[in-house]
Amino acid sequence: MKPILLHEDRLFPVDGKTRDIARELYQSVRNLPIVSPHGHTDPRWFAYDNNFGNATELFILPDHYVFRMLYSQGITLEQLGIKRWDGGESETDPKKIWQIFADHYYLFAATPSRMWLDTVFKDVFGLSDMLCSDNAMDYYAFITAELAKAEYKPRALMDRFNIELIATTEGALDSLAHHGALKGSGWDKRVITTFRPDDVVDASREDFVENIATLGVITGEDTQRWQGYLAALRQRRAFFRQHGATATDHGHPTAATADLSGSECEALFAKVLSGQSGAAEQELFRAQMLTELAGMSVEDGMVMQIHPGSFRNHNESLFHKFGRDKGHDIPMQTDYVNALRPLLNKYGNEANLNIILFTLDETVYARELAPLAGHYPCLKLGPAWWFHDSPEGMLRFRHQVTETAGFYNTVGFNDDTRAFLSIPARHDVARRIDCRFLAQLVTEHRLSDWEAAELAQQLSYNLAKNAYNLG
Amino acid sequence: MKPILLHEDRLFPVDGKTRDIARELYQSVRNLPIVSPHGHTDPRWFAYDNNFGNATELFILPDHYVFRMLYSQGITLEQLGIKRWDGGESETDPKKIWQIFADHYYLFAATPSRMWLDTVFKDVFGLSDMLCSDNAMDYYAFITAELAKAEYKPRALMDRFNIELIATTEGALDSLAHHGALKGSGWDKRVITTFRPDDVVDASREDFVENIATLGVITGEDTQRWQGYLAALRQRRAFFRQHGATATDHGHPTAATADLSGSECEALFAKVLSGQSGAAEQELFRAQMLTELAGMSVEDGMVMQIHPGSFRNHNESLFHKFGRDKGHDIPMQTDYVNALRPLLNKYGNEANLNIILFTLDETVYARELAPLAGHYPCLKLGPAWWFHDSPEGMLRFRHQVTETAGFYNTVGFNDDTRAFLSIPARHDVARRIDCRFLAQLVTEHRLSDWEAAELAQQLSYNLAKNAYNLG
Amino acid sequence: MKPILLHEDRLFPVDGKTRDIARELYQSVRNLPIVSPHGHTDPRWFAYDNNFGNATELFILPDHYVFRMLYSQGITLEQLGIKRWDGGESETDPKKIWQIFADHYYLFAATPSRMWLDTVFKDVFGLSDMLCSDNAMDYYAFITAELAKAEYKPRALMDRFNIELIATTEGALDSLAHHGALKGSGWDKRVITTFRPDDVVDASREDFVENIATLGVITGEDTQRWQGYLAALRQRRAFFRQHGATATDHGHPTAATADLSGSECEALFAKVLSGQSGAAEQELFRAQMLTELAGMSVEDGMVMQIHPGSFRNHNESLFHKFGRDKGHDIPMQTDYVNALRPLLNKYGNEANLNIILFTLDETVYARELAPLAGHYPCLKLGPAWWFHDSPEGMLRFRHQVTETAGFYNTVGFNDDTRAFLSIPARHDVARRIDCRFLAQLVTEHRLSDWEAAELAQQLSYNLAKNAYNLG
Repeated sequence: MKPILLHEDRLFPVDGKTRDIARELYQSVRNLPIVSPHGHTDPRWFAYDNNFGNATELFILPDHYVFRMLYSQGITLEQLGIKRWDGGESETDPKKIWQIFADHYYLFAATPSRMWLDTVFKDVFGLSDMLCSDNAMDYYAFITAELAKAEYKPRALMDRFNIELIATTEGALDSLAHHGALKGSGWDKRVITTFRPDDVVDASREDFVENIATLGVITGEDTQRWQGYLAALRQRRAFFRQHGATATDHGHPTAATADLSGSECEALFAKVLSGQSGAAEQELFRAQMLTELAGMSVEDGMVMQIHPGSFRNHNESLFHKFGRDKGHDIPMQTDYVNALRPLLNKYGNEANLNIILFTLDETVYARELAPLAGHYPCLKLGPAWWFHDSPEGMLRFRHQVTETAGFYNTVGFNDDTRAFLSIPARHDVARRIDCRFLAQLVTEHRLSDWEAAELAQQLSYNLAKNAYNLG
Repeated sequence: MKPILLHEDRLFPVDGKTRDIARELYQSVRNLPIVSPHGHTDPRWFAYDNNFGNATELFILPDHYVFRMLYSQGITLEQLGIKRWDGGESETDPKKIWQIFADHYYLFAATPSRMWLDTVFKDVFGLSDMLCSDNAMDYYAFITAELAKAEYKPRALMDRFNIELIATTEGALDSLAHHGALKGSGWDKRVITTFRPDDVVDASREDFVENIATLGVITGEDTQRWQGYLAALRQRRAFFRQHGATATDHGHPTAATADLSGSECEALFAKVLSGQSGAAEQELFRAQMLTELAGMSVEDGMVMQIHPGSFRNHNESLFHKFGRDKGHDIPMQTDYVNALRPLLNKYGNEANLNIILFTLDETVYARELAPLAGHYPCLKLGPAWWFHDSPEGMLRFRHQVTETAGFYNTVGFNDDTRAFLSIPARHDVARRIDCRFLAQLVTEHRLSDWEAAELAQQLSYNLAKNAYNLG
Repeated sequence: MKPILLHEDRLFPVDGKTRDIARELYQSVRNLPIVSPHGHTDPRWFAYDNNFGNATELFILPDHYVFRMLYSQGITLEQLGIKRWDGGESETDPKKIWQIFADHYYLFAATPSRMWLDTVFKDVFGLSDMLCSDNAMDYYAFITAELAKAEYKPRALMDRFNIELIATTEGALDSLAHHGALKGSGWDKRVITTFRPDDVVDASREDFVENIATLGVITGEDTQRWQGYLAALRQRRAFFRQHGATATDHGHPTAATADLSGSECEALFAKVLSGQSGAAEQELFRAQMLTELAGMSVEDGMVMQIHPGSFRNHNESLFHKFGRDKGHDIPMQTDYVNALRPLLNKYGNEANLNIILFTLDETVYARELAPLAGHYPCLKLGPAWWFHDSPEGMLRFRHQVTETAGFYNTVGFNDDTRAFLSIPARHDVARRIDCRFLAQLVTEHRLSDWEAAELAQQLSYNLAKNAYNLG
């Protein structure tokens, strides 16, 4: 058996002088509270504070990073116990699944998943041997037993992890019952929601027409008409704000925006509501809605996050068998400079507008995003996202963005995860990489040491609080 | 107060051995004369040699790098004293503007603007404290007083900066009166013009039809007809050559070229002259004109610079209030491999043709530009441009271009600036980065030390003189 | 005269600790046998084992890397002795050509061609002075004399180079006579063919209709009908497998795939066979054929290599004078995420399918290729290709691919060359760069030393054997 690799100086540059500076910067920020303004944890965890289940349920079944890699090497999703939509059989023995995972742990060498998992195994559970075929069952038994303890309940972990605030993400039709259950507990200040209206904005969804009807029922607005639909959205935004939301989130296939006239909007809305719209009309409707939602942000001050560019459910037969979020979303080339112009021409100079842009297409960092954020007062850049939320990806982000956009047009780190136990590991990677980047600037005499220290604090904590209006 | 950061070893790699080699290479080129074959300084400065005005006029009002960053963080252009086209009011007190700039100097951390400005403050003015809120007024007063002295007149600075030659850029209709005023002074060899005919080639401009008429008046050619128009352009090129020009410059939205028949050209020219042309016809006309202008370069030997890929004036309402060059030009994805083919098929193998390609889209460095320049005898690659004229940008250029195009298909450095005082700082950054790149090749045993020394000289001086026919 | 630069530690990182680790890893793999599963050597060399000719014939005339660089700096292809198609004259004196090459050897500074050539000159021929104008004729005489010796015959070099296996590449109509001549010699296990059917798949070729007719004659199938054409392809695949082929290769302009119905296929095939098809139909036919050929791979287990994205013969007049493969193929932007979807939706989850993807467009490494290979079990990533088969290119590949796809979705190195003598040099560069990459992961504590040692072996040897089914 081999020890878990989790060196105190991991991710720091090898040069001794730069490593010393990186380490010193990191020491000044490593224990700062975690602010997690965008992610996908389950509000039930925090509302009801029940223990998590077994190791397989916690680490494999919900983590598409893990099972996409295993799938790429010939392990079927059935073997991994992923539930089939079509009623077909999947493995149900969590121990067998865990053993397969352990047998193939070598596949994750040098991936961020390996670093996150090893950090959780060692720092959260105190394990010291690296997971392998031989110790798989010991690992499983130990983790599963630990999870049953009081100190592994979600709220205890929130405290242990020093998470000051976490934002979950809910659809426009969500009752927010779990957030509601937090009210008055004091925890409603630490666990807030985010308004993600894709389900009532994306007319390409099978459930879109139904969702619009439901939206009408929930709000009492006439959502069969354009103005009623907009009023319903405004009402839902207010409801989400009552549950702590300071931000919205938009996961469109592209960053397209539009600025149609009122009558064009009415006609387009009628068309998409008819269920007879084509792909181009659906795209135009999403585009128009980004602009409408920006206008609502100008009114109500909610921060707008745009996460475009994922080709969802690329593997058609797998989608039919297993559904969404099964590791087959693939990034696409994404334009911003033309796509965002209608929205920016309408609202780009509004003092009260805050839009955070994300991308899965790194080619736009230096070419489009940094110049846009380095000019428009409403635009800031979200951190390296998804496939790029990794040491190399974060370094590419800083190297390509900083010279044009500076640091203050960025917003700190997002963990963007449903893997609650990995949140400290993810923020730790981000803090290490930012300190590494700053340290290199210092040793190359491109930044003063005192300015690097200020920026390390900003990147680890302040920028996120400011950008998301978290006071 | 904090000292200005301007370390003697700035931008060199941190490894001791590589840094020593970089420093040694740099010492061998740091004092070479500056050749500035492409830029936007004002010929009046050199023709009449008057003193510059105050610090705000010199450092803020003309520098879109500076005010785009301030604008991105919520400072209005009115606060910065940028003149409005529509008669609206702007701040007129240069001291108040300077104070705002100083208050926000932290935004520029790790940007090239910071390094250029700090170099000017320290090396040109002898200041030692970093600009901040507290010393803003002292800075303003000191710089403004210095600027009134004889040793800060343009020609004195040309000598002090060791600028051997500087090329300005003028439109096709320019009288070149200021360059004319230099004739016989000896300075006409050091300050030359460049022919930039966008104003009479780009039919999307509001003033295009008027400009063509003016071109006729100036040249005596019948510019309402295709052949007369071409003859007028040839005449203007000759006139520019009499004022020292060795090069032309073309700032089109794309790199598109075309090769239409004579009758197609006549019809297209008539259409664009009618004022009734659409965007596609205007694009085709620009494309055809790049090929026509390449043909003229074959005839007259002028070096052709192509600077494509900027989405000009992206922020529409700001454009209507403040006009061009206000920090809202955004790079676009740019194709070269298909776009240039009509021109290259016509003239690409001409021994007498020299085209220097620039890009704002770094994705083409390794994919398109290096392979094109590594084959076509007429093509060379201009240095990292605009947003990419920065330490990281220059390193990306060398790392991505060199293995396919070598060094001899590149052309040295362009400062491309209207910020005259920053010219030595900009060339210094380029020389440091090139020496750093060469030093890394040496310590990794990919290049001999003697060859690195030769190349440092080439990249700092010789290649620019050769590529621009500055003999 | 200057010595050849061929330092024992070349390409290793400069940091002492990382260099030590890189060197140690490299020592463990440098003498592993060479597996060359994709390339363009001539099977006649190995079948008949005749000596090579003179230095110019061996190093200049067939190497488009060499003469494209010389051409880019104004040396004509006629001066370099490249044969003209149109009967025009070219230089015939190999010594004169060699002298030109030597005179311009400085152009190759810091290019992979320089490193490959210097390695051959020093390691294969034992030369120690760097090639230059003064020693050009000595070089020529020495190399040419050596080439006449028995130890420079192809089979002797195969042994000396420790090449365990080499795959050549032949068109679908090739008789494989030279591979046939190897049968029974024992060498048929070391020299195998690869099935490249572009000549009978790409209907844009002038000889396509004729090739389909020939295919019918060779196979006895009715290739004028869709089913007969497919049967003929299956027959040729079986014939290639009898000559050792384990893989196919496809060099299409794009990665487009399609999934048409049987009747659509029949109609499209009839159209392209008519010689009246347009570019879009030819593209659709290539797209459909990639899917058909993937289906055949599912049947017969041949590994499918896709090499898309080259704009062939970009310089039209040069093409008319000198023909294909003359250094004017230019990479194009290439989409995979949309292009491959029809094929992947049909066969992407087949356990028996192995597709190796290559690219000339590095922007897809992190955005498209790593996510695709990190999900689909049939997809793996070929190494950095052509212009990117260089130290910097290989590093970019590993840095951008590894975090998402890991190491086990890559396939080791391809030399992809017709320059037989440079094969050890090329594999050596790949092994050095991989060890360098692994060493950096170790010193940054992102990978354990024992895991790096295992991976060095995998990347240098095992992955290639496994990916290409070489047992």
